[in-house]
Amino acid sequence: MERLAGLGEDGLLALIFKRFARQRRPGLLLGPGDDAAVLRLAPGRVLVATQDDLAEDTHFELRWADFRRLGHKLFRINLSDLAAMGDVEPIGVVVSAGFPPDAPRRWATDFLQGLSDDVRSFGTPVIGGNLTRSSKVFFSMTALGAARPGRILRRSGAKAGDILAGVGPLGAAAEGLKLLKKGAAKAGGRASRPPSGRASAGRDAAGGPYVRAFYEPAPQREAAAVLAGKRLATSLIDNSDGLARCAALLAEASGLGAAVDLADAPVDGDPDAGEDYGLVFTVPPGRWPALRAALPLAYRLGRMVPKAKGTGAAGGYDHFKGR
Amino acid sequence: MERLAGLGEDGLLALIFKRFARQRRPGLLLGPGDDAAVLRLAPGRVLVATQDDLAEDTHFELRWADFRRLGHKLFRINLSDLAAMGDVEPIGVVVSAGFPPDAPRRWATDFLQGLSDDVRSFGTPVIGGNLTRSSKVFFSMTALGAARPGRILRRSGAKAGDILAGVGPLGAAAEGLKLLKKGAAKAGGRASRPPSGRASAGRDAAGGPYVRAFYEPAPQREAAAVLAGKRLATSLIDNSDGLARCAALLAEASGLGAAVDLADAPVDGDPDAGEDYGLVFTVPPGRWPALRAALPLAYRLGRMVPKAKGTGAAGGYDHFKGR
Repeated sequence: MERLAGLGEDGLLALIFKRFARQRRPGLLLGPGDDAAVLRLAPGRVLVATQDDLAEDTHFELRWADFRRLGHKLFRINLSDLAAMGDVEPIGVVVSAGFPPDAPRRWATDFLQGLSDDVRSFGTPVIGGNLTRSSKVFFSMTALGAARPGRILRRSGAKAGDILAGVGPLGAAAEGLKLLKKGAAKAGGRASRPPSGRASAGRDAAGGPYVRAFYEPAPQREAAAVLAGKRLATSLIDNSDGLARCAALLAEASGLGAAVDLADAPVDGDPDAGEDYGLVFTVPPGRWPALRAALPLAYRLGRMVPKAKGTGAAGGYDHFKGR
Repeated sequence: MERLAGLGEDGLLALIFKRFARQRRPGLLLGPGDDAAVLRLAPGRVLVATQDDLAEDTHFELRWADFRRLGHKLFRINLSDLAAMGDVEPIGVVVSAGFPPDAPRRWATDFLQGLSDDVRSFGTPVIGGNLTRSSKVFFSMTALGAARPGRILRRSGAKAGDILAGVGPLGAAAEGLKLLKKGAAKAGGRASRPPSGRASAGRDAAGGPYVRAFYEPAPQREAAAVLAGKRLATSLIDNSDGLARCAALLAEASGLGAAVDLADAPVDGDPDAGEDYGLVFTVPPGRWPALRAALPLAYRLGRMVPKAKGTGAAGGYDHFKGR
């Protein structure tokens, strides 16, 4: 099996430059291959910038990881953060990858293939990045977007009485993760090498909806554009660390509490387990009919209440404490 | 000793928001604390974006690392990449950090102190980022800059006959790294916990020039602005992976070779060992007197030659092969 040490940094860089050389996008003045990328924003637009990471043993394990699909996931969790700011057009991503020198070459080429798939899917170019040796695999991405200043929605802005609502899955990604772990356990525990490409660990891995929810969350760009464009929402966040935490963060940002009620919500698994990457937002009650007309898949999650009454402290996933 | 798991993600985030809440900068519309940051570029400016990382066991070892100074280093290696594009004003940085849950709280607070020091030193705000659990420590930064399109210098653009030149140290960082390793070895080999704050491993650590060159490389923003503003240089790169590699990359980008001659260069150690973060650039011979007048510390490093004659293949540091 060919290792990254055999290919070398220059060999891998050559593959990267070849793969991302033909990206064309209005405003992309200089893409990968120099010390930095150069972009021009359209007139009247402000820059929106966010960063999110995937780390071995925390977000994935080598015994079941599919590096192509990790490329998808890294892309999408970052585009989800842009969507969480409202009507934001993604204009480019910058990607860092750390691999051990004895990593199979496929880990890197599969990961690049995943990025490349999503460059096409989302029309958003990889404009630069960094490669480094690292004893554990990690990926870091910065996503850059452009928006009209009036089309940005923040975490703050809700009023008591606003409806708490969402779009996207609840608990599906966590179910997918369970399936991936179960599949890997069945396949004989710790494999030293993860599967490559589309064929993958676990019966459900290739295309099952839960595993897809885990690996290929759908950034809610269109929904966010509707929420921001028609000023239907008063505050907005993406659902990355679980519903309880999102609701608490929205509430806290507006000095409120949140009373969560899941009766109308399409729950697939533990909604507080995180990694679902839908949107959670607040809507004045009078705007709810217009919102449902514009976004038929939006569902109620409860109501914003004065601070003393609702969930005060943030629940959900804490990276250092665990849950 | 307090661990990150005791402080928790929310505790650490609270420290971060508190530390970076009071940053004010024209164009910074929304800093840390939401899903993404929002910046406005000055009229006529394009966006310049770059990313660089520091990974445990590759860029630093726990037995000698000083996390405050790693904060400095991460900031500076990224600002160096912006300087490598010419007259670029840094407008913000986005930072990811991965720590194990049992890491001492000081690792994170020292790192934040280092970032905070450099926010002040460079007038460049931390506008966002991400925190994650990771079995090995890693840091990733994206630096964003603004430039007039005519003030950008690329790796390509040199002509045969151009003088190859530089500013900044050559080999000093590698000497600093040797001192840090020697200091740690003397202090009794593998310490499970690195030192914190200013007092540090090795006699030279606190303020010696070599260790400073390793931890606190000086981004050459002013020199780069002169090179780009007066069109003195035809091509430009920063010296991150060693002189041989820089020269080869500049040569390759212009379809040339590079004949390196160190007779006039201020060499402190192995110039090909990397991490010096000066600038390497090419200058038409007729512009050399003007360049020396504008940048008295610039030195000659050789000459650009037709492809067959000079160093063809890239030397220097390869992250996956080693040297």
